[in-house]
This record gives sequence, C-alpha cells and structure tokens, in this order.
Amino acid sequence: LRSKLPHIGTTIFTVMSQMASEEGAINLSQGFPGFGADPVLLDLVGKYTREGFNQYAPMAGIPSMRKILSEKTQLTQGYFPDPDREVTIVSGATEAIFSAVSAIVRVGDEVIILEPAYDSYEPAILLNGGIPVYVPLNSTDFSVDWEQVEIAISSKTRAILVNSPHNPSGFVWAENDLNALANLIRDREIYVVSDEVYEHITFDEKRHFSLGAHPELKEKTFVCGSFGKTFHVTGWKIGYCIAPPALTEEFRKIHQYVTFSTVTPIQYAFAEYLEVPDRYLSIPSFYQGKRDFFAKGLKETLFEVIPSHGSFFQLVSYGHLSEISDRELAEKMTRKLKVACIPVSVFYANKKDDKIIRFCFAKTNEDLSKGIERLQNLR
Amino acid sequence: LRSKLPHIGTTIFTVMSQMASEEGAINLSQGFPGFGADPVLLDLVGKYTREGFNQYAPMAGIPSMRKILSEKTQLTQGYFPDPDREVTIVSGATEAIFSAVSAIVRVGDEVIILEPAYDSYEPAILLNGGIPVYVPLNSTDFSVDWEQVEIAISSKTRAILVNSPHNPSGFVWAENDLNALANLIRDREIYVVSDEVYEHITFDEKRHFSLGAHPELKEKTFVCGSFGKTFHVTGWKIGYCIAPPALTEEFRKIHQYVTFSTVTPIQYAFAEYLEVPDRYLSIPSFYQGKRDFFAKGLKETLFEVIPSHGSFFQLVSYGHLSEISDRELAEKMTRKLKVACIPVSVFYANKKDDKIIRFCFAKTNEDLSKGIERLQNLR
Ligand SMILES: CSCCC(=O)C(=O)O
Ligand SMILES: CSCCC(=O)C(=O)O
Repeated sequence: LRSKLPHIGTTIFTVMSQMASEEGAINLSQGFPGFGADPVLLDLVGKYTREGFNQYAPMAGIPSMRKILSEKTQLTQGYFPDPDREVTIVSGATEAIFSAVSAIVRVGDEVIILEPAYDSYEPAILLNGGIPVYVPLNSTDFSVDWEQVEIAISSKTRAILVNSPHNPSGFVWAENDLNALANLIRDREIYVVSDEVYEHITFDEKRHFSLGAHPELKEKTFVCGSFGKTFHVTGWKIGYCIAPPALTEEFRKIHQYVTFSTVTPIQYAFAEYLEVPDRYLSIPSFYQGKRDFFAKGLKETLFEVIPSHGSFFQLVSYGHLSEISDRELAEKMTRKLKVACIPVSVFYANKKDDKIIRFCFAKTNEDLSKGIERLQNLR
Repeated sequence: LRSKLPHIGTTIFTVMSQMASEEGAINLSQGFPGFGADPVLLDLVGKYTREGFNQYAPMAGIPSMRKILSEKTQLTQGYFPDPDREVTIVSGATEAIFSAVSAIVRVGDEVIILEPAYDSYEPAILLNGGIPVYVPLNSTDFSVDWEQVEIAISSKTRAILVNSPHNPSGFVWAENDLNALANLIRDREIYVVSDEVYEHITFDEKRHFSLGAHPELKEKTFVCGSFGKTFHVTGWKIGYCIAPPALTEEFRKIHQYVTFSTVTPIQYAFAEYLEVPDRYLSIPSFYQGKRDFFAKGLKETLFEVIPSHGSFFQLVSYGHLSEISDRELAEKMTRKLKVACIPVSVFYANKKDDKIIRFCFAKTNEDLSKGIERLQNLR
C-alpha cells in the first residue's frame, strides 16, 4: 500500500510520552495536565451516563451544549454565535481543525502555515490535496511577520492556519495582529482556520482576542476550540467549531461523515458544568501560578527562558551551552536527567533546529519542583 | 464557499429522528437502541472517570482495550489480531470507515459500493477524490451479484466497500460470498473496507464471517466495527479497525490527524466489561427475540415483509398497495400514523425508489407493540 503520508511517523508527543514512562522520567513533554479535573465535572459524566444519556447526540451537538458555549463566548469574547447555525460540537479540536481544512481545501490549493506549528495542520492539508506554504514566525519572540505572510500569498492561496495563544511558544496575538490579517485577506477568497485551544490560558496583561469576535475576520474564520484543554480532560476528546452559517454548513457536511457526533454524556456534563462562569474565568490565574513558578525555577538553570504569555508551554534555548541537536538533547534529558521535553525542531516542516526545547507546565507543583531541581543540576 | 459535497444535506437519520420527536411519533427510523445499556457498563464509565482516567489515551487505543478486542475476535471469529500492530480503537465506526477510505483512496481511484448502502461511504470516497462506482445488490433478497461486481472492476478500481450483516436489508453473507470476493480481487491491487458494525446481530442459523478471518481477504481488508452498536451505547462513539500491519500503519497515520485518540474512560470501561464473553455472546438471541416479535406483528399488516437475517433493521415493501414515493410514505407514516421509518431510496445514489421502507427494531417491546398496532391500523 503506497502511503498517502510517507514522511509521517508516530507523533513526537507519543514518542516522548512513551520514553518518559519507560524511563520513569517526569513527563513535561506532551501537552496534557498531570493533575485531576474538578470532581464536580467528573461526577456529571457518571450521572448522565447512569441516567441513560447514551445514544447518538444530534450531529451538530446537543442544543444545551451549543447554547452554553455561545454564552461563554458572549461573556469572554463579547459576541454570541448562533447556536443553531454557527456552533458545532466535535470530537476534539483535532477533528475541528481536520474538518475545517477539509471543508475548504481542494487539490492544488495553497494553505499558509506559520512555523513553528502544531503537527496536525500539515497532514490535514496534504490529505485534502492542498499545498502547505510555510512562513516563519519572528525568531526572537514568535510574533507574526505580516510582511512575510503577504509575500507568501498567491492567487492559489485558499486558507491560512493561525494559532494564538501559540503552541509551542506561548506568544499571544495583539488586536493589531487580527487587523493585519484582516487587511491581508480583504477582497481575497482566503479562509482562516484559527486554532484557539488555549483561549483560556493567557498571562500578565495579555488577553485572547478570538478571530470570531473580529468584525471582518469572523466572516471567513473557523474558530476551533477544545474543552479538554481548558478543563483538564484531554482524554474526553470534545471540542468545537464556531463559524458563520455558510461555513458551518460546509463544516458540518464533513463532520457528519468523519465522526457524525460526539460523546453524549460528556456533552450533557459540560452543558451543566459551564453554567458557572467562574469555572473557566478562574483558569488564567490558575495557570499563571504554574507558569510563574516554573519560569522562576528555570531562571536558576543554565537555560535561557523565552517568555511565555499564554498556553501551558514554556520554551527555553540552549544554543549558548551546546551544539547538540534538540532531538538528541530531548532524548538525553529524558533518559539521563529524567525530565521529558519536546524538541522544537519537530514543529518545522524542514526540522529547523534553533536549539530550543519545550516544556509543558500543566503538571502538579510537585512534578514541576522535581523537574526544576533536576534541570538546575544540569551543567 | 464552494461546497465540496454540494449534493449532501442533513442525513436522513437526523431528519426522521427530528420529525419523530416533533410529531411525538414512535421512532423506528434512526438505528439506535431505544432501551438502556447494562448498568454494569454504565457504572464502569463513572468509575474510571472518577478515578482519574481522563487524559489522552494512546493514539492507537489503550493496550488492555486492544488486547480484549483481540480476545473477543479470537472467541467469535477464530483469529487473534496482533493488538500492537493490527488493532486501532477509534471514535466510532464512522471514523473507522472514513480513515480506512482515506488511507487507500487517491484522486481518480474508483471505489465500488454495493447499493443500497449506508450514507457515509460515498462522502468518504468523494472527499478523497475517489470515484464511487455503484453495483446494485439483487433486488429480491439483497444478496451480492458477484458477476455484476466483476463487470464493475476496472484497472482504476482501488477499493470495494462491503457491509455484512447489511444495513438496511439484514442480508448476511455466506462463506461463499467471501470466497467470491477473494477470487475477484486476487492478483489485483484492490483493498476492502468491511463495515461489520452488526457483527454480533445475526439470526436463525446465520453466522457472521468476518473478512478478517478469511485466509486471503484478511491481507487486504480493513475490518470496521462498533462497540456502540453492539452494547446499546451509540452515543459513546467508540469503534475499531482491524487490519494487517502494513494497512494499520497507514490507517493510524490518518486517525492520528483526524481525531488523534478516543475517549479514555470509555476505553477503560470496555476493556473491563469485555472480560465476560457472555456480554456479547448473548446479543444475538436478545435481538432475535426482538426481530421475531416485530416481524410477526408486521405479518398482520398490509406490508410485505422482506426477511432480515441480521442487523437491527427490518425492510417491508408496499408497492402492491400504493404508488406513493417512499419518502412521502415515510413522512406520512411519521406525521399521521406516528410511526417514524426510513425510506430506502436514500440508500441509493440515484434515489431509486423500489417502494421499500426500513424499520429499526432495536426498541423497547412496548414501543414495538405500539408501533405494530399503529401499522396494523393502516389500510
Ligand atoms: C494530541 S497529543 C499533543 C498534545 C499537544 O497539544 C502538545 O503536546 O502540543
Ligand atoms: C449515525 S445515524 C445512523 C444510524 C444508523 O446506522 C442507521 O440508522 O442506519
């Protein structure tokens, strides 16, 4: 069987998590919480399961779940997407991104990816016959170089994939970034797939501006989000797509035949859980505590800390210390130092190695402390 | 936005279920159980959720779930697929079918579909740039006309999608059907996607022969199955794909970027639940009771009953009674008679109307009784 994705192997997140567990290393690699979710949320799943909410949900999601998501969006982003025509509940943000890309990209279409980029974007484009066009983010702070994006746009450009708060860097777009993007795609038939899975994780004075709230961008954007990332249940595989009616219509045609619908009792659980806004409004300060704690500890290591303003990731660079490749260093750190991390070169199509590694700080304070201690012993 | 699936609307199953609930009709349309699952299974989900099994499962599925599926396959089909290299747990059989088709079909490839066919096959092919080639099943009993299949094969044929026990007809393949298929694709580079979601629902002397158990076919087949269908929890969106290592490798590349993984506590629940084989070995007689009860009642109506040997569907024809289209009849029955059903023309690309409608008998005996009573009043 000739492979449709010949260059694709097991994702680095799986590789490093496995290596971490083989080695008994502290796993600061794959992006998932190392602590439990709110018992209230957990009990709700048990309750709805026991009470018999176990058959197919409606294809677009149960109405109460779509409505409460619109209310959350109103509260945090200032707009209320139409639950019937603009909101779809799907089996994780990965499915949202895949289905959004599939709804718009045809054979020969060019799609712009800003690198470093999450690893699912490229295969989604390739499987639809699209041509990824890579634009590097600024190497100092991972901000977007909009002139570079403009240069990359051609008559064949059909879509751009964006991600703020950004994985792996933690860069958070300012309002000006949204305006710059709007200027670039105005009068062009270019759609946007916006990966906003870290929407609730921003720090300091930063806030997340959803593309769905932007007066121009919202008309052309698929906003992809994740409840698993926000509420510490990445294994529940529940996410969403918000897009204007014409885009949602096409999105749902794909979703209908990719997974059809998303786990029913989990939807009921979230529909109830999200009724208390503090459950998501408290997330930023929770994670800011972790970021502060972790970044402070890192300052006592030999690494150079690259400020993270959002997401639950922290980058550090080590080029001043060693010429070792980031993949080798990540493996060494996992096996020898017993702290697993992710080499950032894997986020580039050409595996560009800027001597940067990524840590996930969505871990218990105990694990973060132990991790820091081991990293401080590195000479 | 130009549609990639311009002819696709809301699936008939959603349309009829919605109409049923608007009208307060007994819903014998969409294929999902109208009764609860085993409380033991339900409690297991609550247990694993509460106990903290809520982060990403491994991409291929948790090891214990893959292993117990192999053991079930050994017990029911006489072969033991390698849990590490031949088994993948996915977010429902719809995802299994989509990912299998995506793993093999490229732009311009022809894919054979035997009609009437489940409605997700065609979009999966189209989204991969494939060309569906339709072969009608025999109109009397919905058996396969292998000569017609042979005629449909060309040098461009890349795959064939098959389904036994068959939705909507309930036809169950005999061993000879598997041999006929093996003969046809021998020495050709044609792969098989085998939708076996009703594997545990066969009646009378019939048994299900999985293509994965066939000495030749297994080398070229993706067996797609569903735990939701078998264990009365269609809303849990958990299914599987069994395929030889080379095929599984390609399948997983797709799955990794379509959904990545499947709900963790549900996998743990099934891994434990499937340890007791009687939990699936008892399914055929349970459903045979329902089929017998429903078919007996239907004999006292004006409909002509087309024998069902598997699945939880029952076809009836009404061409001797009326010239009304099957779509109109289904709507009338839902709105006037208050019994929702599915018109079989929707299972044909060209909407061929043979004056046949489909009932789902995976419903409580009370609902089946009431349904029968109303159908018997039809003159
Ligand atoms: C789907 S596994 C990857 C999780 C993640 O988002 C990350 O580690 O970047
Ligand atoms: C995914 S909804 C359709 C359920 C089903 O398999 C059917 O009714 O045929």
